[in-house]
Amino acid sequence: MQIYCFFVEEEFQSQLLNNAVTELSRLPGVGRKTALRLALHLLRQDVTITDSLSRSLSELRHGIRYCAVCHNISETVVCPICASTTRDKSVVCVVENVKDVMLFENTGIFNGLYHVLGGVISPIDGIGPDKLEIDSLVERIKAGGVSEVILALGATMEGETTNFYIFRRLAGTDVKITQLARGVAVGNDIEYTDEITLGRSLRDRTLFNG
Amino acid sequence: MQIYCFFVEEEFQSQLLNNAVTELSRLPGVGRKTALRLALHLLRQDVTITDSLSRSLSELRHGIRYCAVCHNISETVVCPICASTTRDKSVVCVVENVKDVMLFENTGIFNGLYHVLGGVISPIDGIGPDKLEIDSLVERIKAGGVSEVILALGATMEGETTNFYIFRRLAGTDVKITQLARGVAVGNDIEYTDEITLGRSLRDRTLFNG
Repeated sequence: MQIYCFFVEEEFQSQLLNNAVTELSRLPGVGRKTALRLALHLLRQDVTITDSLSRSLSELRHGIRYCAVCHNISETVVCPICASTTRDKSVVCVVENVKDVMLFENTGIFNGLYHVLGGVISPIDGIGPDKLEIDSLVERIKAGGVSEVILALGATMEGETTNFYIFRRLAGTDVKITQLARGVAVGNDIEYTDEITLGRSLRDRTLFNG
Repeated sequence: MQIYCFFVEEEFQSQLLNNAVTELSRLPGVGRKTALRLALHLLRQDVTITDSLSRSLSELRHGIRYCAVCHNISETVVCPICASTTRDKSVVCVVENVKDVMLFENTGIFNGLYHVLGGVISPIDGIGPDKLEIDSLVERIKAGGVSEVILALGATMEGETTNFYIFRRLAGTDVKITQLARGVAVGNDIEYTDEITLGRSLRDRTLFNG
């Protein structure tokens, strides 16, 4: 493996190309072949394209900070969602990551605040509760003003474990704890829905309003 | 379409994230979704990862030049292949682009020099012979010292057109002009080989050496 990598790296006679390909191939889903294609593409384009890309990545990484309240990405100490005066501060939606905030915002039906955990509990990946923003969530709830916590983590084993851990941690408080409905995905056929989901969707059936 | 793009761009509350996603999505095969995934990945990684990536791309684009002889990428005026004293300078392999040089070098069986055209003639894409390094190839051959030109372009209509154009341009010279063998690809079944290729492979059959 070491020898193979060495060979592959040697094939570019340019150290500059080698460096660029090595750095590009650190990106998720980008192997050395794709990295080479990207690098050669940039070489064919106007120099301003590479300059803008390079500058924007550097500015992103150095300029972005995380909201002191919800840990969403932000360019200010407190993010626009937490700082908003029109949002319902009594409902906190607990999500795994920054992207989930975007997804829920895009639904356009949630007007509360968020709390970004930064992951889910996953002992196999060495991620315990201490690596997540769970302590800060508990503090935030105990500080008062929140009446409902929506657990909006994935319906995976890790997500359910994290849900249950947070539920236990918030046991002493009088906050209402809810979770996302489980059921048949909109647009999905019954035939392709697994039995556990079907069971949940049957148990948690809702009134049909015609 | 305009409205949709606007909406998608608006969904990130951070201008820094917007910029990075926009620049990343200019890369070939990278849409806004992938660009967002890459940007968020970089945000989760150590700051040195982004710094190295950003720097290496900038150094690549600003530092790479093209060999004055063969137009392959190079960090020096003449590339290591052209400058080599052990390579056979009497054979010039004409290829479409920089990547093809790497591919032929990886075969390990070619010891001549290259000439990188920078593309193939494609009227539909507005690429005429004047946009390619064909004049410089003709000059190079006419300067003498080359006994064979190998046309190593793709077996496509554009490749064949370019082959024929170069053949015509070199008509006055006494250089031998060859092209890559057409035939059944190694590892391929006869069943999945098209008729034109099969015909060529039959016509150009070689002696079986057991």
